[in-house]
Amino acid sequence: MPHTMDFDGHSPRPENIGIVAVEIYFPSSYVDQVKLEEYDEVSAGKYTKGLGQLQMGFCSDNEDINSLCLTVLANLMEKHGISYSEIGRLEVGTETIIDKSKSVKSALMQLFEESGNFDVEGIDTTNACYGGTSALFNAIQWMESSSWDGRYAVVICGDIAVYSEGNARCTGGAGAIAMLIGPNAPLVFEPGLRATYMRHAYDFYKPDLTSEYPVVDGKLSVKSYISALDNCYQNYCRKASTKLKTDVPFSLRDLDFMVFHSPYCKLVKKSLARLALNDFLQDKIKYYSETEQKCFAGLENLRETDLASSIFDKSVETTFMTASNNLFESKTHRSLLIASRVGNMYTPSLYSCLVSVLISHSFEELSNKRIGLFSYGSGLASSMFSMKVCNVDDDQSKQALEKLIYGISDVKHRLDRRQEISPEDFTKTLKLRASTHLKCDYTPSTPPEHTFPGTFYLTKVDDKFRRTYDRTKTYQNGFTNGH
Amino acid sequence: MPHTMDFDGHSPRPENIGIVAVEIYFPSSYVDQVKLEEYDEVSAGKYTKGLGQLQMGFCSDNEDINSLCLTVLANLMEKHGISYSEIGRLEVGTETIIDKSKSVKSALMQLFEESGNFDVEGIDTTNACYGGTSALFNAIQWMESSSWDGRYAVVICGDIAVYSEGNARCTGGAGAIAMLIGPNAPLVFEPGLRATYMRHAYDFYKPDLTSEYPVVDGKLSVKSYISALDNCYQNYCRKASTKLKTDVPFSLRDLDFMVFHSPYCKLVKKSLARLALNDFLQDKIKYYSETEQKCFAGLENLRETDLASSIFDKSVETTFMTASNNLFESKTHRSLLIASRVGNMYTPSLYSCLVSVLISHSFEELSNKRIGLFSYGSGLASSMFSMKVCNVDDDQSKQALEKLIYGISDVKHRLDRRQEISPEDFTKTLKLRASTHLKCDYTPSTPPEHTFPGTFYLTKVDDKFRRTYDRTKTYQNGFTNGH
Repeated sequence: MPHTMDFDGHSPRPENIGIVAVEIYFPSSYVDQVKLEEYDEVSAGKYTKGLGQLQMGFCSDNEDINSLCLTVLANLMEKHGISYSEIGRLEVGTETIIDKSKSVKSALMQLFEESGNFDVEGIDTTNACYGGTSALFNAIQWMESSSWDGRYAVVICGDIAVYSEGNARCTGGAGAIAMLIGPNAPLVFEPGLRATYMRHAYDFYKPDLTSEYPVVDGKLSVKSYISALDNCYQNYCRKASTKLKTDVPFSLRDLDFMVFHSPYCKLVKKSLARLALNDFLQDKIKYYSETEQKCFAGLENLRETDLASSIFDKSVETTFMTASNNLFESKTHRSLLIASRVGNMYTPSLYSCLVSVLISHSFEELSNKRIGLFSYGSGLASSMFSMKVCNVDDDQSKQALEKLIYGISDVKHRLDRRQEISPEDFTKTLKLRASTHLKCDYTPSTPPEHTFPGTFYLTKVDDKFRRTYDRTKTYQNGFTNGH
Repeated sequence: MPHTMDFDGHSPRPENIGIVAVEIYFPSSYVDQVKLEEYDEVSAGKYTKGLGQLQMGFCSDNEDINSLCLTVLANLMEKHGISYSEIGRLEVGTETIIDKSKSVKSALMQLFEESGNFDVEGIDTTNACYGGTSALFNAIQWMESSSWDGRYAVVICGDIAVYSEGNARCTGGAGAIAMLIGPNAPLVFEPGLRATYMRHAYDFYKPDLTSEYPVVDGKLSVKSYISALDNCYQNYCRKASTKLKTDVPFSLRDLDFMVFHSPYCKLVKKSLARLALNDFLQDKIKYYSETEQKCFAGLENLRETDLASSIFDKSVETTFMTASNNLFESKTHRSLLIASRVGNMYTPSLYSCLVSVLISHSFEELSNKRIGLFSYGSGLASSMFSMKVCNVDDDQSKQALEKLIYGISDVKHRLDRRQEISPEDFTKTLKLRASTHLKCDYTPSTPPEHTFPGTFYLTKVDDKFRRTYDRTKTYQNGFTNGH
């Protein structure tokens, strides 16, 4: 428990609020994107090279948004030995709606029954893939407020992303992430460094409540994402230059890692290039290291590029993707480990990129580094913000970071030991999901045998739509069976 | 604008955060509950005396959750002369879901276009009737956090509550409330005085996404509400006794007004009686005024009542409703003005009770008083918290309170000038809503003639489900036409 004092509302804000522990869950089944290209009879490389996707995780009819979130929460708590009575706030960000009124959070309260702790603030929050970020901001603010009672907050984001047959189906995914938020964390959110951009758009939305599938305006979706990125980045840089009192204007130079919401990995590479274009047009390349500056030499003819109208300018895009390739390799590439192999998980997507950074670098590479995060949800809501990794020269900080990273050290192993499913069977599974979606008086036909240990699964939707769950046996290594 | 300084994240928390202004919107049509009793062929008084409902507001097919919230936000801003650039956070609490992904908040960003202010945090938050309270807590916490940038927050709650034909249909309603949140407010939330109770329950939920109607387990719903009330009240009293350092244990004596989420008014009267029962069982009646103590004389035989099992004990209920009648009259009765005439508005219900208290008492009656609030959302999520009205002996405070109350001084007038619709036509309207719910390529058949001035209404849902709105002419008194 971070604090046990009776918080009287006049104490100063706690410091160094951030992520104390994190857990990720993704389905145990995936389809290979090369095989999906063949099955879909599209040109070779369309999904793999064109979109940057290698594999896609998916769920059968025995998993739903409640089961995903139950799994990731229970695993977080058990792995890190946290008691449910130590949690004072729990909020869920999701756009996978199976009930218009009852929150996923309320279903998660089943896990708190034994502890007798029901004084747990927070419900669900929704705007496409942005819900988890909003939940995270709310958790941080609760901890900084006079209402904080000294306990941890947990932020959960989870989604099942499926598309109707056609072009977009290969951009699905599924998963959930739980973050334990507390003061004196090894990953600290930088106070006041947050730029938000929200606007009305019909780029991607889910107005057909009978279907799991969204309505997508592909071109508007890219345009909205990129223009939100431009706006957030410019606003973030302005705030950062002021608040950090930097000698020179804030630029990509000051972001050691940069992670993005990843609908598909290629868009992330384009996004990093876009930030470089922003820096270029604001004459900030000159603050880059000499090596990096060289990559942008000879681009003077693009000095008059109009940012807004350049979004679909292939020539500008290609030029800056090439010029920023080194920056992408050092700051962003390794953030796509999970996104490229699980796909778009919607709300957890951005945070899967953060997890990927953490498990793909050494402590020394992470120590004291700034990680920029860009969160985007269609509709639209977006924010850019940042965190600092603790300095591992400090033993206590190093231990906290080690503990956090140890908790997710099994991720690559779990990715590898998933079961590959053929495109034919994947298609059958999505048909099964579609035909049973929202049904009552229904028993899922898929047995839980192939799920990971410790996975919650749906056992029954009764005639009044009430859902019940069970859990597969947990690992021996410190996990206890929750149910 | 409350603050214009560059907030550096280390400034102390602003003080006296609360409601600076409030606006309510309810539909211009209602059905009379006496006539509905006749039409439904139920015993006379079933809805009016049995449930305490007089009238019920409802919308036709030209209003949806977006239009309700657009209306209440635009009216708040115009009435109080607030510029959209002064808003740094806007969050919507609702359980009226017309899109699983795109938030109502994102639709409200249309009103910000002209101002060019898109740096506005907050999205939608959902758990039945509790969403508005969660949005409110989040707004207060944002303002107390290092991320506050000196601007106002706006909290919006809105819902359209309709039920399938039968017993529950008379408990519908519709409306929206917008609250402007800022420091140095005339209605101040008491820091740290907040008790929450959340648990998994299928009492009222909306698993059939194709329908506007909920699934309701009536008995479980009452049981869940009352047991949440017991838990929140006991926890709130414990916190209040400690934090306020009261001489004697905190009880109803210390709450000058007590407002409740009102699914129907009779449940609110039962709830106030329930708090008195809690006080009685904890031997706190002796702290009541002498006059009030007398009402509870001779109840010693109920001293051993078991709280949990007494929820459906009619004898205990009747005894305490009689004993607490004076308390109800002074603390709660007038809070039901809007709830009894508009019905259950879901998320705005509790805040309509607050508005009713404010417009039903003189400044002197309100001055320096504590208002307790109990928020309940099925599923379940609940909180009890409190606010203090400013002391009107202070001129500046009095002016702020006057301004706030002036803004809602037209509520009774608006209630009176609504159009009464016969139960036959009301039924036809609900059939129309049901048959057109979620349709695309649809033009509403109801003209906007009978809506209040300044009301947004749905003009079209196109073939891609995109919704467009227009607005009726606003009043002359300072309102400008937004569209």
